[in-house]
Amino acid sequence: MFNKILIANRGEIAVRIIRACREMGIETVAVYSTADREALHVQMADEAVCIGPPSPKDSYLNMNNIISATVLSGAQAIHPGFGFLSENSKFADMCRECNITFIGPDSEVIEKMGNKSKAREMMIEAGVPVIPGSKTPILSDGDAIKDANKIGYPVMIKASAGGGGRGIRIVREEKELIKSLQTARAEAKVAFGDDTMYIEKYLENPRHVEIQILGDNYGNIIYLGERDCSIQRRNQKILEEAPCPIMTLELRKRMGEAAIKGAEYVGYKNAGTIEFLLDNNNQFYFMEMNTRIQVEHPITELITGIDLIKEQIKIASGERLNISQEEIKLQGHSIECRINAEDPERDFMPSPGQVRILFMPGGPGVRVDTHLYDGYVIPPNYDSMMAKLIVYGKDREEAINKMRRALTEFLIEGVKTNIDYQFNIINDFNFIKGDYHTGFINRNHNRR
Amino acid sequence: MFNKILIANRGEIAVRIIRACREMGIETVAVYSTADREALHVQMADEAVCIGPPSPKDSYLNMNNIISATVLSGAQAIHPGFGFLSENSKFADMCRECNITFIGPDSEVIEKMGNKSKAREMMIEAGVPVIPGSKTPILSDGDAIKDANKIGYPVMIKASAGGGGRGIRIVREEKELIKSLQTARAEAKVAFGDDTMYIEKYLENPRHVEIQILGDNYGNIIYLGERDCSIQRRNQKILEEAPCPIMTLELRKRMGEAAIKGAEYVGYKNAGTIEFLLDNNNQFYFMEMNTRIQVEHPITELITGIDLIKEQIKIASGERLNISQEEIKLQGHSIECRINAEDPERDFMPSPGQVRILFMPGGPGVRVDTHLYDGYVIPPNYDSMMAKLIVYGKDREEAINKMRRALTEFLIEGVKTNIDYQFNIINDFNFIKGDYHTGFINRNHNRR
Repeated sequence: MFNKILIANRGEIAVRIIRACREMGIETVAVYSTADREALHVQMADEAVCIGPPSPKDSYLNMNNIISATVLSGAQAIHPGFGFLSENSKFADMCRECNITFIGPDSEVIEKMGNKSKAREMMIEAGVPVIPGSKTPILSDGDAIKDANKIGYPVMIKASAGGGGRGIRIVREEKELIKSLQTARAEAKVAFGDDTMYIEKYLENPRHVEIQILGDNYGNIIYLGERDCSIQRRNQKILEEAPCPIMTLELRKRMGEAAIKGAEYVGYKNAGTIEFLLDNNNQFYFMEMNTRIQVEHPITELITGIDLIKEQIKIASGERLNISQEEIKLQGHSIECRINAEDPERDFMPSPGQVRILFMPGGPGVRVDTHLYDGYVIPPNYDSMMAKLIVYGKDREEAINKMRRALTEFLIEGVKTNIDYQFNIINDFNFIKGDYHTGFINRNHNRR
Repeated sequence: MFNKILIANRGEIAVRIIRACREMGIETVAVYSTADREALHVQMADEAVCIGPPSPKDSYLNMNNIISATVLSGAQAIHPGFGFLSENSKFADMCRECNITFIGPDSEVIEKMGNKSKAREMMIEAGVPVIPGSKTPILSDGDAIKDANKIGYPVMIKASAGGGGRGIRIVREEKELIKSLQTARAEAKVAFGDDTMYIEKYLENPRHVEIQILGDNYGNIIYLGERDCSIQRRNQKILEEAPCPIMTLELRKRMGEAAIKGAEYVGYKNAGTIEFLLDNNNQFYFMEMNTRIQVEHPITELITGIDLIKEQIKIASGERLNISQEEIKLQGHSIECRINAEDPERDFMPSPGQVRILFMPGGPGVRVDTHLYDGYVIPPNYDSMMAKLIVYGKDREEAINKMRRALTEFLIEGVKTNIDYQFNIINDFNFIKGDYHTGFINRNHNRR
């Protein structure tokens, strides 16, 4: 086991990793930018090294400085957390060259899975379902009709160069197809100067359901159930729960086994997440793989009783997984709300500043992962997440009641927060029914 | 189910009960003395009623005022917490007369179990082991020899009027008996003017192991495993853990079934605890029954997954227990440290005052039950417990590591605390081995 680990991150995830290390008897080295001199992770770690000015590219993304800090402090491994360098294959490579253990999968795997089209190809090869689509550009109306029929309606016509919703059409019946293709093509031509078009399956109100996996260095891979992360605002997750409220044993097994198939195919090691879109017919499709720990990992920890950060460290140090798939028992229900310093009344604009009054919820079934303390000044340079409020109840109803109670207790003054916004979501009739999908926020909570 | 409950208590237990009520959708009424105007339970409850001046006898023990507050607020039930009126049978009677549900057992049961010698008699009748002893005073040397032989050495000679350790002798062999009896008798005569003497079994370094029970109004009683509360200073528990580190399945079953036998015999309802002394030969002896929720209830909650306060409320409202004995599965390990405002360097003198800096530990497996907030002024009128730091790990080793980590994080300035003292206990070699008994503090940690 390592004696000392450097944490190449900041905020609550750095605190989370320090806590795991401390419980394992491993010394910790924090790194920080000059904007983070007073940050909690700096105060909590055994050592701390300044790695540059506030701008992320000069500090938390500054590979040379981080590698130097690791070598100089004598740390044997780097935990990258999430964001920053966590999915940077070049950084993982540099670690290897410097004889430092990068706590994550091999750099080759990070690279492959980071390339969306390569990842998709590999998943097809592995036999993991992906969203069906035309394999080559649509050159003629005949191509379009043939491909659309093969894929099955509704389909989506997409410009290859697309973005911002332009050059996109949803087509529900064959008789609309050609006209839609023509207008989308014209739009793409004007917008991007490129009218190359593809057709893919259009998923009606899918859920975002992801599978947590753990793999050791010896080819053993297990899955730890799923997380439903459909509650998103502009593709940013804001509330997650585990299990997914509409999950069945049969579907979980299918999704879990698909995730393992994909992970095995690429030789995956350490913690990872395979994100799927799940449609109304319980068909699921690979979206992407995150080759790192995720923000929402605690809800999986609470329903499985497994500490994912400790598992990451144990695996990276060469230990074998000591949990078998059969031993994974999901128990109870967990929900996480991301508490952000942002102003829902001003389009969720970040709201950095000093925390003047802070009261965090506690008591049974409540976990707060945060780097906040009373008087802390949230710098404007990084993302706006201040805390993760995580609850655990014996069932979904209790978890919802706990989250409602905990949000009511949470008090932060000095900065604007999304606490009331989260409170509205947790009290939303459709959310309570478990009846929601990735369009939920847009439809119900787009404004405060 | 009740719509509104009045909480006849203060501090962390009042906060704990409010949280349970809120999660159950029950309104809460706090009561407070004038010293507690700014207390957290007052701020958190839906309503709050001042019931008198700081002195407990004029406020939290003022039955008339509390009953009036209940009637006026329209609350249908009173949760007494622990301490104050929680084991006052007269108060439970008053509630019944006023048609208010007292959340606890019947007043007759409270009264019986509150009388130590009556409780002992009843447990003997129920077939629960009690510490063997002479049934009548020792009138002659012959009596002494006969009784001591029957009880088995070592025995303890005790003055009936005894106290403060006077008139007590430990006797390990028959040849010492008569001489010890004479000197103890002489000592008792001088000290108390009464030389009535008894002999009872002397337990060598016993552990304090207690069984949590739950009984509904229909005669169903279950036990929820045990708590080891041997770490005591002057008979005050300061650290508790569950399970007991030396427990076996066989012994747990025997103790649990004895507890149920006793509870059934007295017609026990609601949550209660039977405290036993456990000797080196795995023999256990009834000590007393606490007819209320206990400070250390959270460790049982964490290893059973059962919310004891919610169960108390459900039972009192007339619900049947919906958990069977077979469904009680103990999982993992939990430890609680009581964090007190006291000065270990000055003989643990209470240290009331204003909390100026407060940072509470968090993250996975850490629960803090407290009424503290930054700036709170701890009044000098009540007991010195400020917080309960509770951890949960998959096994005892992880729980100890977590507690060590959490105590390191805990920061309270403005008042003296026993945090460092608890840190020393958690790092004590014998504690880590699980090798301790009620004499642990006296032997190892009597001074800071």
